[in-house]
Amino acid sequence: MEARLQEAKDSIRDVVDFPKEGIVFKDITTMLKSEKHLNTLVETLYQQYKGKGITKVVGLESRGFILGTVLAYKLGAGFVPVRKPGKLPAPTYSEKYSLEYGEDEIFIHQDALTADDVVLLHDDLLATGGTAKASIDLLNRFHLKNVFVNFLVELDFLKGRNKLNTKYEVDSLFHF
Amino acid sequence: MEARLQEAKDSIRDVVDFPKEGIVFKDITTMLKSEKHLNTLVETLYQQYKGKGITKVVGLESRGFILGTVLAYKLGAGFVPVRKPGKLPAPTYSEKYSLEYGEDEIFIHQDALTADDVVLLHDDLLATGGTAKASIDLLNRFHLKNVFVNFLVELDFLKGRNKLNTKYEVDSLFHF
Repeated sequence: MEARLQEAKDSIRDVVDFPKEGIVFKDITTMLKSEKHLNTLVETLYQQYKGKGITKVVGLESRGFILGTVLAYKLGAGFVPVRKPGKLPAPTYSEKYSLEYGEDEIFIHQDALTADDVVLLHDDLLATGGTAKASIDLLNRFHLKNVFVNFLVELDFLKGRNKLNTKYEVDSLFHF
Repeated sequence: MEARLQEAKDSIRDVVDFPKEGIVFKDITTMLKSEKHLNTLVETLYQQYKGKGITKVVGLESRGFILGTVLAYKLGAGFVPVRKPGKLPAPTYSEKYSLEYGEDEIFIHQDALTADDVVLLHDDLLATGGTAKASIDLLNRFHLKNVFVNFLVELDFLKGRNKLNTKYEVDSLFHF
């Protein structure tokens, strides 16, 4: 990995026992507050996804909004949010997914995308893959031309990637 | 207002009776999904805030993350999130604010800013001003060099601006 990218990765803070005992939380706020690291992230991801004809970046609430919109702007694409219940005001599609206890649901506006779109789906973290899988299922409703899936951080040991079970290209910038 | 900015404003969708009866919700997703409008928003706000020495953009969860990070990137600044309860893993400052029924609380990491920072505080909407006032109070803990406050949309008839009671420059791109 390039030196400035390694430096950005090293600035991610480990917080032990958050949100609960036994979990080591990867805190990206220490990376994002640095103008240097933010610039490195944006330029690197832009180089990776430019020239692929991406017309919309879809970001997952909330941390997927952070880099999602910068990437949309850089790529000359529009930005579309996938949101939690009760947030999107117009007609939506939705997908449920399992949590450790119970389930949750995510939503996208029905008029957010069309079959002509090439989408970059972005979130900050690929962990167990539940939200990511549900997001890909959401996107499949639109019969899109193509989809690229990108995460800032992937926790390889949780094997979330296996759950995605998709024909689309999936990539993460940082692996732990 | 410039034509392309007026066009962006006109693309904001009114949703009647959301989130509850009697409220007309200003839905910015119809504006953000357009690469043309997204570009107009970013370039306009960049022109407004460049050259002011801004070192950090602080965005409010969740919709303040959307343009907050693009502005940070464009201005060569870092990005700092203000978040809802239970989201930030390291030591925080917090401020409570009143809702129609009960109260809520917002948080910022104590190591997110220093007294040397010049901050652009950004959110998508200035309505009654409760969250915005609490955010300014949060920022005041850091004794910052200067603060600029920016909203994408201001609902003038709710007079939220009066509640802010701040010496800082407050500006909104679109007024309704």
